Amino acid sequence: MVNLRIPGPTPCPDDVLEAMSGQMINHRGPEFAELIERINAGLKTLFQTEQDVLILTASGTGAMEAAVVNVVSPGDRILNVSIGSFGDRFATIAETYGADVERLAFDWGTAADPDAVAEALERDDAYRAVFITHNETSTGVTNDLEALARACRRVRPDIVIVVDAISSLGSLQCAVDAWDLDVVATGSQKGWMVPPGLAMVSVSERGWKAFDEAKSPRFYFDFGRARDMLTKGQTPWTPAVSIFYALDVALKQLVSDGIEKIVARQRRLGDLTRRGVKSLGLELFADERYASDTVTAVKVPEGVEWPALNKLMREEYQTVLAGGQGKLAGQIFRIGHLGWVSEAELEATIESLRSALAKLGSTEAARAG
Amino acid sequence: MVNLRIPGPTPCPDDVLEAMSGQMINHRGPEFAELIERINAGLKTLFQTEQDVLILTASGTGAMEAAVVNVVSPGDRILNVSIGSFGDRFATIAETYGADVERLAFDWGTAADPDAVAEALERDDAYRAVFITHNETSTGVTNDLEALARACRRVRPDIVIVVDAISSLGSLQCAVDAWDLDVVATGSQKGWMVPPGLAMVSVSERGWKAFDEAKSPRFYFDFGRARDMLTKGQTPWTPAVSIFYALDVALKQLVSDGIEKIVARQRRLGDLTRRGVKSLGLELFADERYASDTVTAVKVPEGVEWPALNKLMREEYQTVLAGGQGKLAGQIFRIGHLGWVSEAELEATIESLRSALAKLGSTEAARAG
Repeated sequence: MVNLRIPGPTPCPDDVLEAMSGQMINHRGPEFAELIERINAGLKTLFQTEQDVLILTASGTGAMEAAVVNVVSPGDRILNVSIGSFGDRFATIAETYGADVERLAFDWGTAADPDAVAEALERDDAYRAVFITHNETSTGVTNDLEALARACRRVRPDIVIVVDAISSLGSLQCAVDAWDLDVVATGSQKGWMVPPGLAMVSVSERGWKAFDEAKSPRFYFDFGRARDMLTKGQTPWTPAVSIFYALDVALKQLVSDGIEKIVARQRRLGDLTRRGVKSLGLELFADERYASDTVTAVKVPEGVEWPALNKLMREEYQTVLAGGQGKLAGQIFRIGHLGWVSEAELEATIESLRSALAKLGSTEAARAG
Repeated sequence: MVNLRIPGPTPCPDDVLEAMSGQMINHRGPEFAELIERINAGLKTLFQTEQDVLILTASGTGAMEAAVVNVVSPGDRILNVSIGSFGDRFATIAETYGADVERLAFDWGTAADPDAVAEALERDDAYRAVFITHNETSTGVTNDLEALARACRRVRPDIVIVVDAISSLGSLQCAVDAWDLDVVATGSQKGWMVPPGLAMVSVSERGWKAFDEAKSPRFYFDFGRARDMLTKGQTPWTPAVSIFYALDVALKQLVSDGIEKIVARQRRLGDLTRRGVKSLGLELFADERYASDTVTAVKVPEGVEWPALNKLMREEYQTVLAGGQGKLAGQIFRIGHLGWVSEAELEATIESLRSALAKLGSTEAARAG
């Protein structure tokens, strides 16, 4: 049994995987309408929103692009708050569509400072929207999204707050309506315990107003078409029906657990992972005050090559870790602990790391071992 | 057992559905690289191309949009050859991205005339690309794509030929390289016998040159990123892993059958369906010379309401037909016979129709019955 410890796709429970093998149905018929209505209700509960949640057949990056093209017009001034690779990607997508993006970047491994965001908004009153990553998968940092949103609203009550919540929603506290977030996107392969292929996005009234005004070209990702078809229990284009089956099953479990229990469990899993990593003498990459409860980034210790560690973990310990992305390649590795994961699997991951590092002659691990 | 007779999603064989419930793997690891390489090889065989086939996590409409944004710049003059709803959609997508589209429309139910297409190209030498639907799912007509492509090349040897082959590739003869087609898109939920969620696109050298010059904004659907990542056995964004598993299994069968056998089988299924429909006294919507071997469009007979027929077929005969789209709503219904379908299922469909029409008091069916 492989211990898949990447931050998505995450392993899926047996009943979710079984649902994936359901036979096809008419995506314009009553069975699909019942399915999408039930899923929409479950998503609203976990997004903590009264708004409908749109479902796109795409991965998380598709949802980020959808957020851009439905909110932004070419030339629009956008404040992009980035703390890592995915935050940077959001800016790149907005620039691709002609937005005038101010990149407010914080050191990788740290969280965004709400006061600095507020100051940036004060310096220029032309911003139409602010883009924020909730949980930065590349560095293992969770932004204080509630505080960031509050800081934005203090300066600009009507600014459109667009959130990449791909690796947070369904796992971490993310109260879409209470925190007054406008466009919030997530992906099925993260905390939802479902295979990749669906992206889910909520849109507030303010978000719909921005949609009405936005002039970027859009068709496949058009929120308006998705909203109109959702009222008929359909999607505008043929949906990935099987992944709807899986999401339906996973949502039953997630809704039954409830967001408080899920969040508390994620905190335990995050704590366990961080304590385990430190017990090996390894250093966390993220500022521990903001360390993510869904993914932990660890510095590759002195004297160890990541490719060798990765290979050994895969081949000897059937444990699949994630490497660093972009400028962090070779510098860090990451342990995913979101979705369907047990404390025992995380304990086994730490023990495998202990043994692998000792084999590779890491002094830190040997000292700690 | 439901007889799902819509033109996609089509029913999937048991082993394909079983593959859908495989556990997740690292989409950046060696297992996925082996998987995508094997699938790419199979797709090349069935596309009859030497070019790599890009795989996008999206439905067919996403592939159409991808074809547009990777080939067209705003202001580009495009000739759009339409014989139905999906042909019109292609023009709308191109217009959405700012193309200057000439809509060359043929009567619904007929095929595009190669001479008329050649004349249109002769009238204006500014066309950068021609968009053609191979098999028009909304009307049940298959264009003579080989003749259309030859007519285009005769007038404009270097024009970029972009083909919506969503409901033809893998079912009907579509020799991408031999017919010198440049950008050819299909979707997993059609003849491939796989659930929806993946779109597959081939790009010729001429297509790549157009890509290099095209200035439409693109990110999620960027062909260049997909090409670059394919050389590493990856996709740029998290792929719908489970549907890759299914496509892998289905391709084994399709490649083993071979395109000639598949095409001959589709012809038998098409003939059987058309003969059956006519035996009920019903009228085919399509000009029979160009009637599609993957989907048959049938005129709703006088005195019968499509909603009533649809409901009766669903509830009494467990047979799901497709209605008409756009201006054909209520005027026609459609019988899908692509992907995993047997002659017995089509015979049962005809018999169910005979019985349902008699119950609804259709004089045509009663006379024929």
